[in-house]
Amino acid sequence: MATVHDLGEFRLIDRLSQLVEAAGLEPPAVGGFHLLLGIGDDAAAWHVGAGLLVTTTDTMVEDVHFTQTTTPWLDVGWKVMAANLSDIAAMGALPLCAVVTLGIPGSLPVSAVEALYAGMLEACHRYRFLLVGGDIVSSPRSFVTVALTGLCPKHPLTRASAQPGDAVAVTGPLGGSAGGLQLLLSDTQPPHSEAFHHLVRAHRWPEPRLDEAQRLVQAGIRCAMDVSDGLVTDLAKLCRASGLSARVYAAQVPVDPPLAQLIPTEALQLALNGGEEYELIFTGRPALVRELITAAMPRGAVIGEVTSGPPGKVTVLDHQGRELAVATHGWEHLR
Amino acid sequence: MATVHDLGEFRLIDRLSQLVEAAGLEPPAVGGFHLLLGIGDDAAAWHVGAGLLVTTTDTMVEDVHFTQTTTPWLDVGWKVMAANLSDIAAMGALPLCAVVTLGIPGSLPVSAVEALYAGMLEACHRYRFLLVGGDIVSSPRSFVTVALTGLCPKHPLTRASAQPGDAVAVTGPLGGSAGGLQLLLSDTQPPHSEAFHHLVRAHRWPEPRLDEAQRLVQAGIRCAMDVSDGLVTDLAKLCRASGLSARVYAAQVPVDPPLAQLIPTEALQLALNGGEEYELIFTGRPALVRELITAAMPRGAVIGEVTSGPPGKVTVLDHQGRELAVATHGWEHLR
Repeated sequence: MATVHDLGEFRLIDRLSQLVEAAGLEPPAVGGFHLLLGIGDDAAAWHVGAGLLVTTTDTMVEDVHFTQTTTPWLDVGWKVMAANLSDIAAMGALPLCAVVTLGIPGSLPVSAVEALYAGMLEACHRYRFLLVGGDIVSSPRSFVTVALTGLCPKHPLTRASAQPGDAVAVTGPLGGSAGGLQLLLSDTQPPHSEAFHHLVRAHRWPEPRLDEAQRLVQAGIRCAMDVSDGLVTDLAKLCRASGLSARVYAAQVPVDPPLAQLIPTEALQLALNGGEEYELIFTGRPALVRELITAAMPRGAVIGEVTSGPPGKVTVLDHQGRELAVATHGWEHLR
Repeated sequence: MATVHDLGEFRLIDRLSQLVEAAGLEPPAVGGFHLLLGIGDDAAAWHVGAGLLVTTTDTMVEDVHFTQTTTPWLDVGWKVMAANLSDIAAMGALPLCAVVTLGIPGSLPVSAVEALYAGMLEACHRYRFLLVGGDIVSSPRSFVTVALTGLCPKHPLTRASAQPGDAVAVTGPLGGSAGGLQLLLSDTQPPHSEAFHHLVRAHRWPEPRLDEAQRLVQAGIRCAMDVSDGLVTDLAKLCRASGLSARVYAAQVPVDPPLAQLIPTEALQLALNGGEEYELIFTGRPALVRELITAAMPRGAVIGEVTSGPPGKVTVLDHQGRELAVATHGWEHLR
């Protein structure tokens, strides 16, 4: 099995450049966009119509964000792009160009890097954006970092624009990714039923909500973010940025049905706290939000409301109006 | 000594956001630029006049690109920005916005991260661009990745635009960074003379050639790249991209004078092969290049010429016209 050490940095870059070229990606369907220089120069260069650009970056580190048990390389490639795309969606933007940094040991099989790229390129195809360059460095622990630039066709969606009295809603059911991870790490896996595969797929192949985000923008919504660290944690961040509090009704939080089926006792906590979801949280005037969900967002749900109160405070209430204890930090690195 | 584990991810992000805010960076002096959202939302967002944008990324991994012996954290911060800025310069662009990814172990002192940020912010001040966001992840080995976006005020400088008969030139003397590294790693360091400090500084605090790049663009030069892997290796890449060969006259290659003083026997090889230099290689019509160097680039020198021939072939000749053996790969990762 050829390793990246056998190939060396420069031939590996050639191989990956060929993979990107062979993928035949269509340029983003964004007004005035034109790629002048992709992989192979000191930087990538593109023309773009005047507008509001957004940039984000997201990383996956082996044995921190994924292991060979939980996530094959193909899925790592998809997931790292999905994480970045989810941030682009949460800004109300469309993706344009990605640069990729690979930190890899010499012993890594070339086929692993090729699978990683195949997963990333699959995301490029699906969401129509370009992979325009990057950097490869030696690292004892594998990591992959993507920086993604996008463009807002209209106004941006921000965290800081919630208003008291806004309804709080999500674009779809939650907890699936965390449920899938729990099943993958469990010593006693249930039979590989359809529900099992659904949850594993939710963990390995999450779908960023770019279309939904554009529907939010078109409807005049101004406040959104994605659920990457867990619903309650991320809603708290949104509230903190807006200087407000929020109330969530647990009974209204949509729980991924296969999760409720396979892990019923923990399903609600996973929906409230599970990370790597990539559904969007958004807020807006209650009538507008209800109308939007009815008309254009069948997977979505209103889950609570924005209130005056201490910035960043989120209260979760059960069906009897009693406050539910929820671990409020989701996934925190470094701890 | 407080570690990042003590602080946790979210408070560390707060601390670093405050550092960036306290730095009071001026926005880039580029037409139509306006930062709408910096650190704190899902992505950074800025307006920019229609134009040619460039993006690059560069990473430093502990014990691969630097060690605590060779490079204090402050200098790591400067250097990772310098590496990205050098790519932006090599495109003929000016820097706009950077996003930073930190991969760090929980045991890292908070003061180390603060020093790293101080070094990065020093580069932001010096070259007038913004640090607008990033990502912090847990990693057993520290690494820092920067993705930097810039804008070309005029045409870009590319690797693929050399012409047969062009003069090959560099913006300044070479070998200092590699010489400094060699001294830092040596068991028997020479006295800490002015020359010693010069070389150590060349290694730890390299200066990207953004001003020089703008002079190249103004003069009508179209072909350039930076010396990041070593003069001969990088000139070979430029020639390969242009489908041409090149001849270099060793006697014309400017060797950093303190290097010639402290490591005379290896100075030329280090100038031909040393990486992390960040001087620019450029090519153009001989009269134009000579005039430009005389008028506006006192540190620069013509070192050879572009020739028809096998793409990517670089021949180095000594003062008697004999071919010099040069290791042609500079620093290659993964090997």
